[in-house]
Amino acid sequence: MNPDRGFPDYEFEARTQQCQTAMAALSVDAIVVSTEPEVRYFTGFHTPFWQSPTRPWFVVIPASGKPVAVIPSIGAASMAATWIDDVRTWSSPQPDDDGVTLLADTIHELTGKSASIGMPIGPETHVRMPLRDVDRLRTRIGDVVDVTDIVSGLRMIKSESEIAKHRHICGIVSSAFEELPNLLATGMTEREAFHAFRSEILRQGADDVPYLVGATGPGGVDDIIRTPSDRTIANGDLLIFDTGSTYDGYFSDFDRNFAFGSATQGALDAYRAVWEATEAGLSAATPGATTTDVFNAMNKVLKANGSLGNDVGRMGHGLGMQVTEWPSHTASDNTVIQENMVLTLEPGLLWAPGKAMVHEENIVVRANGPELLSRRAAAEMVII
Amino acid sequence: MNPDRGFPDYEFEARTQQCQTAMAALSVDAIVVSTEPEVRYFTGFHTPFWQSPTRPWFVVIPASGKPVAVIPSIGAASMAATWIDDVRTWSSPQPDDDGVTLLADTIHELTGKSASIGMPIGPETHVRMPLRDVDRLRTRIGDVVDVTDIVSGLRMIKSESEIAKHRHICGIVSSAFEELPNLLATGMTEREAFHAFRSEILRQGADDVPYLVGATGPGGVDDIIRTPSDRTIANGDLLIFDTGSTYDGYFSDFDRNFAFGSATQGALDAYRAVWEATEAGLSAATPGATTTDVFNAMNKVLKANGSLGNDVGRMGHGLGMQVTEWPSHTASDNTVIQENMVLTLEPGLLWAPGKAMVHEENIVVRANGPELLSRRAAAEMVII
Repeated sequence: MNPDRGFPDYEFEARTQQCQTAMAALSVDAIVVSTEPEVRYFTGFHTPFWQSPTRPWFVVIPASGKPVAVIPSIGAASMAATWIDDVRTWSSPQPDDDGVTLLADTIHELTGKSASIGMPIGPETHVRMPLRDVDRLRTRIGDVVDVTDIVSGLRMIKSESEIAKHRHICGIVSSAFEELPNLLATGMTEREAFHAFRSEILRQGADDVPYLVGATGPGGVDDIIRTPSDRTIANGDLLIFDTGSTYDGYFSDFDRNFAFGSATQGALDAYRAVWEATEAGLSAATPGATTTDVFNAMNKVLKANGSLGNDVGRMGHGLGMQVTEWPSHTASDNTVIQENMVLTLEPGLLWAPGKAMVHEENIVVRANGPELLSRRAAAEMVII
Repeated sequence: MNPDRGFPDYEFEARTQQCQTAMAALSVDAIVVSTEPEVRYFTGFHTPFWQSPTRPWFVVIPASGKPVAVIPSIGAASMAATWIDDVRTWSSPQPDDDGVTLLADTIHELTGKSASIGMPIGPETHVRMPLRDVDRLRTRIGDVVDVTDIVSGLRMIKSESEIAKHRHICGIVSSAFEELPNLLATGMTEREAFHAFRSEILRQGADDVPYLVGATGPGGVDDIIRTPSDRTIANGDLLIFDTGSTYDGYFSDFDRNFAFGSATQGALDAYRAVWEATEAGLSAATPGATTTDVFNAMNKVLKANGSLGNDVGRMGHGLGMQVTEWPSHTASDNTVIQENMVLTLEPGLLWAPGKAMVHEENIVVRANGPELLSRRAAAEMVII
């Protein structure tokens, strides 16, 4: 049984009210958001049309009442089908004034002219409009307050409806990974292997596979964010696939490692090290602990296993409408883990010069500890 | 025979030299770019890792010599595999200083402290880093000059290698569209129809289908950027699919309309109108004409056929590493069309209240006029 598509209106009402409670505490009179996940979070507006960089889109969350959409007219019908009532449009593209005046006028109408306006302008955000127009907007509405913490604080805690979508796509991708030994063989090119895996994920029921990277190499791989080459897979190769696939706009994000024919003891040990580091992460990821506790728990295992370091910069992150979201498991992040956060655990190490091994699982944090969303990888590396 | 992957180094050298010639004419000492297509254009760095919003990435194009990459260490190995020699990294995420100091120091080293620094900050651009960090960067390097015209001027004119990738993906999608009458039938849901089409595009050889929208409706559709619902396709329905699919990071972008069982005379006439408007666009799209000439040629046909208007805001656009790029066919765009521009022609009309019809083809402009990249749609609507 597939989870329901979309969300009931009361979920958007709850998101908006929680946002408005946080805004009141900081005396913020309105928040403006401009990116796909931000707009979707508050409205339910869901389309791949965002891939076109031509037109900016805005949603204003006032101090009370429903959000107001300020969008190009091409999106009017789709936005009107959401729970939003107030949809204001202009004919875009219109480079001389692509929504700036309409947005500023809307903000002034909702808040008056000396209001405190917030935008997410901190870590992991960007403002999706030309910088020239950002400056024009600030000339009209004044400097903006950084409300990254409000938006990330809301988005980091998932509802049961959101968690159900994550669980569904993680199950689909788990099944596709388990099918790989039947789909891959030496003699295939990397490109053929990627194609077979992507097709299998879709066949199993994913909506899309926006993120798929990986690598193969003799005895190990040096880079984990690569796209496929025409290299032919040979006996003794290691393969890593890492995919962010989606169901109803919610991501999975985990990887698996395989060997063809055989693996060296070094590779087998490295696999075991990241698997055990993940076990340590699973024990540490409880409400009240911090992302840094989780990092330290995993890092301790990697160090004990002779890690030469890690270029990734972190050992996992939040997961949601984007393949990575706040928070990050790093030595200094220190975000307090809360119930219903959806997180990845992603310990990685260099086990020899130029040889990396990264492992990843997806979890939702519950009162008593993590619930796995991905099906736990085998404790020993699978040999194809 | 599939086109080669990637580009020979001399293509990146030529792009960089042309950029530097344009910079010299405007006395710009360095350009900083931050988005996926901009970075890929100058370096060849190609990965879906950009979907993660966590880390910013930068490339600096100095007044002479190769571009310099200033990127998170997770990308070092992939960037080192490109033609770029100077790759500077920091361990990201690091919210307190996520590359800002390293980028500012690099710029100062390359240009001195009173240089004129350009960034694309105009139409269809954004700066992909937190706005807070944009402001920090400008505190270090001063106000930036808008170089959108330099970057768009380069990217709008495609090389034969780029055109070959466009032609290949447009051929694949044409074949997939032609297969649709064998794949779709009444009784399927929209979701099943989308899945069948996406799978067919991949089966025909596309790397990915990042953009797929469409709609079905009794006798017509009201919205052309929608995602699928559980609606069951019935006799008398019209269907539109519009896809931006990719080969080696280059897009197709065109749509097709179908009817199930039968179509009303109004729908058949509307189809004929957008098909004939496209013919007018094909005649108008020659070097030296403007995008506004192309718009006017298509608009004249639509008006003569009783168009009630168009919510799209334009009738086609540039195509490249993004599903839409500069320029736009609008009443005021006035970009001069040049040889080797890859463009869409996309006339659309409301032919009855709540009933839209949009048609689209992809072309490359040659000395004597357009060469079709998509296989021309049938002159009369195909009935399934």
